[in-house]
Amino acid sequence: MEQGQRSGSRPAEPGPCLSSPCGADQAASVSLLSGAGAEPGSRTLAVAAVLPAGGCGERMGVPTPKQFCPVLERPLISYTLQAMERACWIKDIIVVVTGENMEAMENIIKKYKHKRISLVEAGVTRHRSIFNGLKALADNQPNSRLSKPEVVIIHDAVRPFFEEDILLKVVTAAKEHGAAGAVRPLVSTVISPSADGCLDHSLERARHRASEMPQAFLFDVIYEAYQQCSDYDLEFGTECLQLALKYCHIKAKLVEGSPDLWKVTYKRDLYAAESIIKERISQEICIVMDTKENKEHIGHLLEEVLKTELNHIHVRSQALYNAGSDIQHINLEQCYNFVCVNVKEPDFQETQKLMSMLEESNFSILYSIVVISDEQKLQESLRQGAIIIAALIKERNSALIGQLLVA
Amino acid sequence: MEQGQRSGSRPAEPGPCLSSPCGADQAASVSLLSGAGAEPGSRTLAVAAVLPAGGCGERMGVPTPKQFCPVLERPLISYTLQAMERACWIKDIIVVVTGENMEAMENIIKKYKHKRISLVEAGVTRHRSIFNGLKALADNQPNSRLSKPEVVIIHDAVRPFFEEDILLKVVTAAKEHGAAGAVRPLVSTVISPSADGCLDHSLERARHRASEMPQAFLFDVIYEAYQQCSDYDLEFGTECLQLALKYCHIKAKLVEGSPDLWKVTYKRDLYAAESIIKERISQEICIVMDTKENKEHIGHLLEEVLKTELNHIHVRSQALYNAGSDIQHINLEQCYNFVCVNVKEPDFQETQKLMSMLEESNFSILYSIVVISDEQKLQESLRQGAIIIAALIKERNSALIGQLLVA
Repeated sequence: MEQGQRSGSRPAEPGPCLSSPCGADQAASVSLLSGAGAEPGSRTLAVAAVLPAGGCGERMGVPTPKQFCPVLERPLISYTLQAMERACWIKDIIVVVTGENMEAMENIIKKYKHKRISLVEAGVTRHRSIFNGLKALADNQPNSRLSKPEVVIIHDAVRPFFEEDILLKVVTAAKEHGAAGAVRPLVSTVISPSADGCLDHSLERARHRASEMPQAFLFDVIYEAYQQCSDYDLEFGTECLQLALKYCHIKAKLVEGSPDLWKVTYKRDLYAAESIIKERISQEICIVMDTKENKEHIGHLLEEVLKTELNHIHVRSQALYNAGSDIQHINLEQCYNFVCVNVKEPDFQETQKLMSMLEESNFSILYSIVVISDEQKLQESLRQGAIIIAALIKERNSALIGQLLVA
Repeated sequence: MEQGQRSGSRPAEPGPCLSSPCGADQAASVSLLSGAGAEPGSRTLAVAAVLPAGGCGERMGVPTPKQFCPVLERPLISYTLQAMERACWIKDIIVVVTGENMEAMENIIKKYKHKRISLVEAGVTRHRSIFNGLKALADNQPNSRLSKPEVVIIHDAVRPFFEEDILLKVVTAAKEHGAAGAVRPLVSTVISPSADGCLDHSLERARHRASEMPQAFLFDVIYEAYQQCSDYDLEFGTECLQLALKYCHIKAKLVEGSPDLWKVTYKRDLYAAESIIKERISQEICIVMDTKENKEHIGHLLEEVLKTELNHIHVRSQALYNAGSDIQHINLEQCYNFVCVNVKEPDFQETQKLMSMLEESNFSILYSIVVISDEQKLQESLRQGAIIIAALIKERNSALIGQLLVA
């Protein structure tokens, strides 16, 4: 039932990060968490997360459950895990999947090097799946490598775009109030229909909120609520905050979240997710030259023109003499775009070597784009070349990888 | 204040259609509408539409109001008008915009050849804007070229993806019940916060619906409701169905709509809209040859390979001897993708002529993509060429227009 490693006190090793890498805010997070309502000098708060991922994605209109739908060839859930792993202070991440998707999920964890993950089998409804995840964390489980946390985060596998900040906010509020959840303003007015399919009444939009994820709970509160919970709630309920209210009389603190918290529900949401990820991974570009001669000139010029074509980007230039060793200096986890300019080798030997290395690395295989061009032409029409390079980086169409494009 | 033409009984002339052109279902629509609750043999139902477009788009996080945000370089509202125009049985379309956007809106109508549109100045809230639109349609307006409809549709300028079918459904239901509106299942649970920002109670998701657009009303019902309406409702209300209920005791019929009805609200929705439009306009491709010799061979081969690369596409081949006259045979309103294969002219003279014509036409300027390649190479590696062509059609990056790409 369980799989994966426990991080213990080792530094966490997250997959490639789309924004700030794990550890940047670690000191701040831990101090905030230990200060939040705890005794001075107390130990760091033990936090775990449960991600229900047992849904079948019926609203998407595609046969693959939405959490496994590829976005730039990588399953959606992997982006969510990547975002969760950035919070180094989360000890264990429980992913709840159906038996039939267990193997696929194990492969995703392996391929994208996810850490601190344990897999638990889903129930037939969302609430039953979350309950299974909580049971795995409860301290009376035989042979479990997991330990009971003080606070547990519950988050959807199909909400990949949250920041560490909102996790901190809901965990801090849960520690103080017993339960907390992110909310957003309503986009549409909510109405109540009568039995004959007509309007009975409409709700005042400003007085209501959409309940989003993440949510967090004192573990004992939410575990008690699920243990007390009726079969009707387990079958038809949708809201964890409501269970804490109904069975433990805990009024959850509501935390205003950002628009990023949205849930991938329909096919159009996959399109939006893809565009957001494309935008994020376009921002770091590495220009690789096969010679040091003339590097300053062409590299610098190309950098300047690329910066006018793509907003908010960071460009580095690097001379490459021997792909086998020099590639080590390039941080594959941070950069998803390589522009190779060949001067010396007409047969692109070194570039081919670099491409192979990128393809072998699990990090960049989905993202690397290599433009092969000869310097003579590039210098002649640098702007034309840069426009094409910028278009390739923005659109990131896998069909164009390895194509010879002449500016 | 008003601008635009009345179609009267003339056939409507819609702009370029993304799906089925206007008129395809006209006979069926009109018969359905005249049969719906009306006396047999009665005249066709008079229908108008009001589109409030006075919002400032504060949720988008961009300075341009969302209805004017470009999607593939064309303002979002133009797609909504295009979809509305497909329903030929709608006599007048009232677009309500702020004074400061009036001129921009007039230019959009001119540029994209929108018909049956009248512009009305917005009020400071959504309800006040809709009321202004209704006033322009009421029969007591001096010098108005508009006439009072029996049924009025209210639709958002930022919901471009509806089908004619849902318009018919809400209009038919409004004729019978006095009011009707499209609804969708809730994506998130709705909760009610207490004054201290904690959970007071959560609503059962299955017993509530999100109220979407379009909505439709007997004109006299909704006009009466707005005339009776309190200042508080005009300032803070969001729901037209609620006004019909409160002031005219009309219980609106709720019509289950498709996921397409969603409202462009956040930046991610613009990304989704762009992807949906790209997908739709990729489906018709015209291969243009500069010679009849060998046409069968290369044209047919290219067609076959493109069909394997792009799903659900329709490809036509056409020999082009003289762009000036032959271009007339290509329906610019239906096709957004042209692939030119040059054999005879190494200087691409005819292709240049075709490109100029496409650029001059208001229809295709945003969409035309021309791949220039020489036939010799294309035959050598037809699959490589087709993959690049398919990628260009799918991604539709304007930076690559006119570039020389060698497969």
